[in-house]
Amino acid sequence: MKNNKKNIAIIGVGSTPFGDLFQYSYDDLVREAASTAMKDAGIDPEELQAAWLSTAFPEIGVFKGRSGMDLAEPLGIFGIPVTRVSNFCASGADAIRNAANALAAGECDVAMALGVEKLRDRSPQDSIVKMMVELSHPFYQKGFTAAGTFAVYANRMMHEYGVSREDIASVSVKNHFHGVMNDKAHYRTKCTIEQVLASPMVADPLTLMDSCPTTDGAACVIMVRAEDVDNSKHKPVYIDGIGLSISTGWDLPFFDSGHKFLSFQATRDAAAMAYRQAGITRPMEEIDLVEVHDCFSIVELLTYEDLGFCRTGEAKDLIRGKVTQLGGELPVNVSGGLLSCGHPVGATGVRMVVEVATHLRGQAGVRQVKDAKRGLTHNIGGPGAIASVIILNNEN
Amino acid sequence: MKNNKKNIAIIGVGSTPFGDLFQYSYDDLVREAASTAMKDAGIDPEELQAAWLSTAFPEIGVFKGRSGMDLAEPLGIFGIPVTRVSNFCASGADAIRNAANALAAGECDVAMALGVEKLRDRSPQDSIVKMMVELSHPFYQKGFTAAGTFAVYANRMMHEYGVSREDIASVSVKNHFHGVMNDKAHYRTKCTIEQVLASPMVADPLTLMDSCPTTDGAACVIMVRAEDVDNSKHKPVYIDGIGLSISTGWDLPFFDSGHKFLSFQATRDAAAMAYRQAGITRPMEEIDLVEVHDCFSIVELLTYEDLGFCRTGEAKDLIRGKVTQLGGELPVNVSGGLLSCGHPVGATGVRMVVEVATHLRGQAGVRQVKDAKRGLTHNIGGPGAIASVIILNNEN
Repeated sequence: MKNNKKNIAIIGVGSTPFGDLFQYSYDDLVREAASTAMKDAGIDPEELQAAWLSTAFPEIGVFKGRSGMDLAEPLGIFGIPVTRVSNFCASGADAIRNAANALAAGECDVAMALGVEKLRDRSPQDSIVKMMVELSHPFYQKGFTAAGTFAVYANRMMHEYGVSREDIASVSVKNHFHGVMNDKAHYRTKCTIEQVLASPMVADPLTLMDSCPTTDGAACVIMVRAEDVDNSKHKPVYIDGIGLSISTGWDLPFFDSGHKFLSFQATRDAAAMAYRQAGITRPMEEIDLVEVHDCFSIVELLTYEDLGFCRTGEAKDLIRGKVTQLGGELPVNVSGGLLSCGHPVGATGVRMVVEVATHLRGQAGVRQVKDAKRGLTHNIGGPGAIASVIILNNEN
Repeated sequence: MKNNKKNIAIIGVGSTPFGDLFQYSYDDLVREAASTAMKDAGIDPEELQAAWLSTAFPEIGVFKGRSGMDLAEPLGIFGIPVTRVSNFCASGADAIRNAANALAAGECDVAMALGVEKLRDRSPQDSIVKMMVELSHPFYQKGFTAAGTFAVYANRMMHEYGVSREDIASVSVKNHFHGVMNDKAHYRTKCTIEQVLASPMVADPLTLMDSCPTTDGAACVIMVRAEDVDNSKHKPVYIDGIGLSISTGWDLPFFDSGHKFLSFQATRDAAAMAYRQAGITRPMEEIDLVEVHDCFSIVELLTYEDLGFCRTGEAKDLIRGKVTQLGGELPVNVSGGLLSCGHPVGATGVRMVVEVATHLRGQAGVRQVKDAKRGLTHNIGGPGAIASVIILNNEN
């Protein structure tokens, strides 16, 4: 494989607020994220030559996002290819990946990747539909939820590596501390370990405050080949590497795949791809900030190890030492993470890239990671099966 | 835009039978199409470096195909990126397009594009779910069906261009005549104009026999860069051009978009892209066989004009003159088309590429188009809004 992806630049970023956005339609979300990113890039809609839409769950929310039409129509960008990709929680990263490939291939010169999900608008009928869909699914079984799956990992981490219940809760405390500084986050309230532990149980040991909310939101990036960056107009960031991997299948006992429920092979494989492309061998030293997929607090701890920021079993030391808090050696989820920002599934991966790019451009305001030169985003979905890693750099 | 796509070769093709395949699961369909294509290419699953899955409607059928996991798991291809794309009837072509971009970008050296759809397995619950989904959709309205939409075009063609009801039916007669020769087609029975006209009305003037069936099936192609073709092992075909466009939005009166209901702008735009890449200026002379998206008979007639095989209003002359029948100057849908093969939505675009590649390799048996050197595939979906055109060549 020849491509190291360094030839691709992000020249514009934008996102909506994330939250219970009953005042926004799906189309409104698309328009606000896209117009913000296009304005940031200094381009008009007519200059777009191709676009990728990421929406993961049209059938859960407002039944939008089943094709590229739902990006083309609200923006009025007709006469160009618009692809919809869906890959559970890695959908947004995969939209960016396919856009990067098209640019590198020379199919287009200016590309958009936009992630959007509207999960909070559920009519009574929709809820009934969803329930019926789940109950009629041949693989449906009680407890087969994201929370239930990740709770198994939490218990194993506690049992095998001496991770305490408080260590897990500390991830939520840290990320909510960060989220207060993000005016686009769904939740902007500090919390304590005691509050996390005392909140309602979801899947033992994970409580409500170990869990990200479901959320509405959209995020967008505009991309070109690095050779086409106009430095007088843009403050670009460059893509150093993109990894995406489906590595394991569902991490559930009935697949009997030998999993120990202490690591996500998909994350390790995606990181290996991205690190190879970016030439990274010492991630802790060579990366300045990270957004990881903290859909549940425990996932952030697991991911420290899977991304190689520490050795196996040592994730607890990073959270105890405040290494991953703003001001620490490797700030993780200074946006507030999914725990604060919420998780509009198709949008999350793009939102993370917007966040990291904003830091690499030195424009992150009160939560700016000082001297950030290289950042990483991570997603994991299909509980444990699909992971993406993107590495961004403010130098080429 | 720099890329003319001639750098991409298809080195393996495969498909399942198309039909009411109650004996196949979704995974069975994936495995049969993929293993046939990999065997044809002479590669093992471990040699795949990336894959694209096209399934358009997971929520209508068996709830499979929402992510790349549903391609990775049945094949056991873990540790590589697998993307699911969905773009209504252009999904299959778009999977091929994104795979071609990844190869041209150098992200991978061996790629798979596989389309699969299982539409015939609907439990009673699924039917209720589907009905509730449709009824709860904010845009649901009576008559807003594919048949209803294309029927408007049929009436306009008859009114404006002197197309007769028999001309429209002749498309179905021709394609069913071809379908008899295709042992993978859903329907393999000749029919007459009188039978088409006498079959039950679906949306005036289109009858049941003007309409393609819903169908189960899968098709797969294996792709590499042209420089990596091993001519001792492969009988490759090359991609001359790929166009995909969302051009118009829903072609329905309430969008008041000035449509005359006589042409699909999306097809015209996608064809213009593909022709430019392939250097085609006289499509009728330069193309030897075509698979067009005859979801309803009328669509084939409209598409003759949109693809530039005749002038506006002259499609009827091609069908009357048997120009597009096997043995004619430009055989169209010698596979039997969607009308005979059926329409497993995510699979159809890939099935067409398999068909054209088989002719370009001289392996199409009794329905072989003689001396076929260059072929075209066409899809249109989201009734009228999304179109794809792929041009294949047996020389590089």
